[in-house]
Amino acid sequence: MSNDPLVVFTPSGKRGRFAKGTPVLTAARQLGVDLDSVCGGRGICSKCQISPGYGEFAKHGVYVASDALSEWNSVEQRYKDKRGLIEGRRLGCQATVQGDVVIDVPPESQVHRQVVRKRAEARDILINPSTKLFYIEVAEPDMHDPSGDLERLRDALHEQWQLEKVHADLHILQIMQPILRKGNWKVTVAVHLGDQENTPRIMNIWPGFYEGTVYGLAVDLGSTTIAAHLCDLQTGEVVASSGVMNPQIRFGEDLMSRVSYAMMNEKGAEEMTRAVRSGMCALFSQISLDAGIDLNLIVDSVFVCNPVMHHLFLGIDPFELGQAPFALATSNALRLRAGDIDLNIHPSARVYLLPCIAGHVGADAAAVALSEAPDESEDLVLIVDVGTNAEIFLGNREKVLACSSPTGPAFEGAQISSGQRAAPGAIERVEIDPETKLPRIKVIGCDLWSDEPGFEEEISGTGVTGICGSGIIEMVAEMRVHGIVDAPGLIGSPEQTGSAAVFADGRTYSYLVYDATERGGPRITVTNRDIREIQMAKAALYSGARLLMDKFGVDKVDRVVLAGAFGAHISPKHAMILGMIPDAPFDKVTSAGNAAGTGARIALLNIAARAEIEATVRAIHKIETAIEPRFQEHFVNASAIPNAVEPFPILNSVVDLPRVTFNTGGGESGGSGRRRRRG
Amino acid sequence: MSNDPLVVFTPSGKRGRFAKGTPVLTAARQLGVDLDSVCGGRGICSKCQISPGYGEFAKHGVYVASDALSEWNSVEQRYKDKRGLIEGRRLGCQATVQGDVVIDVPPESQVHRQVVRKRAEARDILINPSTKLFYIEVAEPDMHDPSGDLERLRDALHEQWQLEKVHADLHILQIMQPILRKGNWKVTVAVHLGDQENTPRIMNIWPGFYEGTVYGLAVDLGSTTIAAHLCDLQTGEVVASSGVMNPQIRFGEDLMSRVSYAMMNEKGAEEMTRAVRSGMCALFSQISLDAGIDLNLIVDSVFVCNPVMHHLFLGIDPFELGQAPFALATSNALRLRAGDIDLNIHPSARVYLLPCIAGHVGADAAAVALSEAPDESEDLVLIVDVGTNAEIFLGNREKVLACSSPTGPAFEGAQISSGQRAAPGAIERVEIDPETKLPRIKVIGCDLWSDEPGFEEEISGTGVTGICGSGIIEMVAEMRVHGIVDAPGLIGSPEQTGSAAVFADGRTYSYLVYDATERGGPRITVTNRDIREIQMAKAALYSGARLLMDKFGVDKVDRVVLAGAFGAHISPKHAMILGMIPDAPFDKVTSAGNAAGTGARIALLNIAARAEIEATVRAIHKIETAIEPRFQEHFVNASAIPNAVEPFPILNSVVDLPRVTFNTGGGESGGSGRRRRRG
Repeated sequence: MSNDPLVVFTPSGKRGRFAKGTPVLTAARQLGVDLDSVCGGRGICSKCQISPGYGEFAKHGVYVASDALSEWNSVEQRYKDKRGLIEGRRLGCQATVQGDVVIDVPPESQVHRQVVRKRAEARDILINPSTKLFYIEVAEPDMHDPSGDLERLRDALHEQWQLEKVHADLHILQIMQPILRKGNWKVTVAVHLGDQENTPRIMNIWPGFYEGTVYGLAVDLGSTTIAAHLCDLQTGEVVASSGVMNPQIRFGEDLMSRVSYAMMNEKGAEEMTRAVRSGMCALFSQISLDAGIDLNLIVDSVFVCNPVMHHLFLGIDPFELGQAPFALATSNALRLRAGDIDLNIHPSARVYLLPCIAGHVGADAAAVALSEAPDESEDLVLIVDVGTNAEIFLGNREKVLACSSPTGPAFEGAQISSGQRAAPGAIERVEIDPETKLPRIKVIGCDLWSDEPGFEEEISGTGVTGICGSGIIEMVAEMRVHGIVDAPGLIGSPEQTGSAAVFADGRTYSYLVYDATERGGPRITVTNRDIREIQMAKAALYSGARLLMDKFGVDKVDRVVLAGAFGAHISPKHAMILGMIPDAPFDKVTSAGNAAGTGARIALLNIAARAEIEATVRAIHKIETAIEPRFQEHFVNASAIPNAVEPFPILNSVVDLPRVTFNTGGGESGGSGRRRRRG
Repeated sequence: MSNDPLVVFTPSGKRGRFAKGTPVLTAARQLGVDLDSVCGGRGICSKCQISPGYGEFAKHGVYVASDALSEWNSVEQRYKDKRGLIEGRRLGCQATVQGDVVIDVPPESQVHRQVVRKRAEARDILINPSTKLFYIEVAEPDMHDPSGDLERLRDALHEQWQLEKVHADLHILQIMQPILRKGNWKVTVAVHLGDQENTPRIMNIWPGFYEGTVYGLAVDLGSTTIAAHLCDLQTGEVVASSGVMNPQIRFGEDLMSRVSYAMMNEKGAEEMTRAVRSGMCALFSQISLDAGIDLNLIVDSVFVCNPVMHHLFLGIDPFELGQAPFALATSNALRLRAGDIDLNIHPSARVYLLPCIAGHVGADAAAVALSEAPDESEDLVLIVDVGTNAEIFLGNREKVLACSSPTGPAFEGAQISSGQRAAPGAIERVEIDPETKLPRIKVIGCDLWSDEPGFEEEISGTGVTGICGSGIIEMVAEMRVHGIVDAPGLIGSPEQTGSAAVFADGRTYSYLVYDATERGGPRITVTNRDIREIQMAKAALYSGARLLMDKFGVDKVDRVVLAGAFGAHISPKHAMILGMIPDAPFDKVTSAGNAAGTGARIALLNIAARAEIEATVRAIHKIETAIEPRFQEHFVNASAIPNAVEPFPILNSVVDLPRVTFNTGGGESGGSGRRRRRG
């Protein structure tokens, strides 16, 4: 065994013996320890900061003497005087090994650091940046051995950083020569490290050592809004977030109406493509302004969206997505350049679109799968992304199934008589008094219940304007629990229900939720037609989930994840009373927030995640609900509240649903009027 | 040994035994015989036509019976009735092997056919197309197994043509879906087969079987003119050729003045980039109009040009090329897309620029090396591409050296008092009568000598307007042979020379070549300053060649190739009398015509040639004349006519140069006034 000093790195535990005088950075590289450096060990960038530990380390069997590392040298001292160093830190490229030593690599000095996600059940995001900065010294041109500036720059990347086959887009060639000379042949380059389709590419170049960073965008392109996070590609930090309305809304509120617009109007698809791209550019301008950075510093971007938005964004007519068999132009992930689709970020910036899963299960669903990782779940998880279409995953480590189900816009408050988008003034929570059978409500923007003192004053700014999606779910569930609606979905008469809020409304009954007419507002009611709409929407959702359970060969799931902004506001209990989701312990029903947006951010920050999600998507077994005979049967059963056949034992152990029936032979019956909607 | 029938293919000689009933195309593919097919053996494309031979083939040891191939089937018969087939031809995909047979693959049925070049010493061009057509049947979309149309199209290319990892640019995704349906899931695609930097790419798509072809452009981008050949990528045939003036001329006649324009004017380089690209687009529009084809059918292109044009075309400021050390932004070959540089051909069309050899030895010189292949020459060849800069190669199979030498524009008729570009009316041939010492001339556009009857009438349309480059070379050489100019380059007096054409002209003498003043034309003379200009130009050329000979360690070359339009018109004898090229047998001095243009065409038609020339250029040893001390010495010696020190034994064995000297101590002396010009 060698007498060379032993070097132990933490937290990796990697260890090895090195000759006295070996720089710590060199030792780390030889052991494959994740220690960052942009300047390549020249004492400029300070990315390689380390914390030596001293004294006895029983765990590692090492005693570290006070002189285990070299004295501070002039480079290190100058750096500390000028920029400051955290107490106990050294520069890994300057400090050399003199004796046995234990060296901690703090998270900021790791390239592949973890970004902590807020939710307890979510995995942290591992940073594995697509684009890294490299400081290099380029050989000057020599008439005896003529070669291009780019070729010598590539040689430097190869010799100083072991990067091979690095290419440059034309844009870089156009700006490179004066920058090399301004930096006196020392430059910093941002290199996109490449992927399965592309060799590494120089994305940007600066004279001398560049103190800044480069950025990427994670974009969630929805039919209604476009939301983007601007991230520092080195640290993973979100430096700015912003959103705009999707300018395509003027061509149609929902996706089907946009597909129709493209079909009815020559150049209609082109118009919509221009609209969404210009909206995107406006968003990017805003976000770069917010962050105070140049748009040219944005060198990578990841987009998630549903298939119709995907096609319209790319300039592909969505015609085929409007009819069976719902054929995508392409389902694979796409790697493009910003210039290809007229984006206003760096013209060579990479554009990555996640793969689509099927004609109705888009890159946004793939992003949910990336964020929530059903394929890595030990227990059987049902993931539901509720929107106009619900995308549903069911799976665990063994296999993952996916489908989409046409819930329609009822959960977004559309096609509900008093429905509205979630906005201040919208009813979001409802409770019905067991005795009086009268409701009390909470509205967005106010913490008080409507029967609490001060409610009227608090809401005087907005008034009570309607019921949003999560409100209508609670409303219908409460009506069912308190015997105002029966299992088939019929509202009983005031006599049958014992509620003064029920009133005759044509051939059926309606329920008065809140009367704002005194203050010039609406009279907010739930009609039996509203109940029908919710029944159809929730039946579509449930029957999609149930179909996946059939295919998986199970009758229950271990947990349920509700994704999407809407999912974040649904009460698990009410959703289950409604029979919208399968029976499960309430505490096993959780919200994942904007999981599609999180998936986009993961794909942006961890280049390896892109290949991973592509493999995952290929392995996902897709079920097309439209052609599954059992879907229809499940749908009919699921039209009842909660369900005509499913026992819901966990729910029933907690909630006692009244066994009322209001059908007197003349009214509509639950489960009829089923319509299929797409879009 | 199997009893299966023996199949022998000619001209390849490949042979093998195949089961009775094997289609000839299948047998050919299994043996690796070069037999074309677009439809993959479906009897549609007729590209696989073959000629069976019958009777005794002693050479192959085969007797071919009349029933060696199957009877005509209905597919074959229908094709013949509808389209016709050359007598004796069969369709290789329909005719099956029934007995021993000898099958000839005619050149039209070979993918890698040869295109014959006109000159005897030139190699034929082997066709190895970058882009091929493939007819495929694509699986229809299936809701049970959702996948994108592109993915199923890629699967078809893989299964039916063994093409892997074929990608498509966005443009193809945008047009593909309706084409697939129009063709009822049968389409023809043009696939660029890829290269070291790029995976195969779908370039275009047509419904059903596409009867047409795809095209490529070989473009010679000169400082003065832009010339393009439009080629059929399948046959290699040139279908149209055209040229335009380079619109950059308005920014400066020669390259140095354009570099200056870029330095003096902000956005000057950008203006010139726009100008050359718009000229290029106009040329492409014209050429597609001439050929009657859509610009979108042009899917590949190759460009050759000098380094300054290279940079300006790409939008790179040529500033660095205007001063030592003449650093190129990039010297490697470039692979771009037409859209990257605003060309009006297919937006995804591939753009290939040959590598540059050095700061003054551009992609045009690389194209000359590709066309003339000094690296494959058995004997030692000197290749000179004469222009404002001369590019010079010296080499053989062992090694190749290259340099450029600043000849200046004198060989193009510039800076010569009566000089002009080669155009009708320009003097291109000169003979001086040994007795009278008076000249007779020939002008471009007239076959008669000026002393022949009818000359005046023949030239009445153009008149005699000046002397072009090849004319001035003959002029000066004739003056030297007939004792009107001495070795140092001084014109003698009428008395010294015995010529009535000599006249005093200031402090020196001039020589009257042709007096067109009677018909309102110019008085065409050669002044002593003109002689000086030619001396400097030819000395630069010779000393570059001589320097390469030094570096190679030789005193003579086996042959000399003159490239460029100018080279095609130079008389080898006169060039050697002038001392412009090294001593060599006259019949070993040949012209290669526009070798740069030919090189571009080779790179266009043979994709393997691109990798070859890149390797060749890397291996070429570059000599920078500006920093070689011996260049100056060679230049001084070469200023004399033919040379102050070189013996020129072959020339002297044929021509007896008079040992006159006219220097009376007061005139200029040869070899002074040397200026270095670049551009």
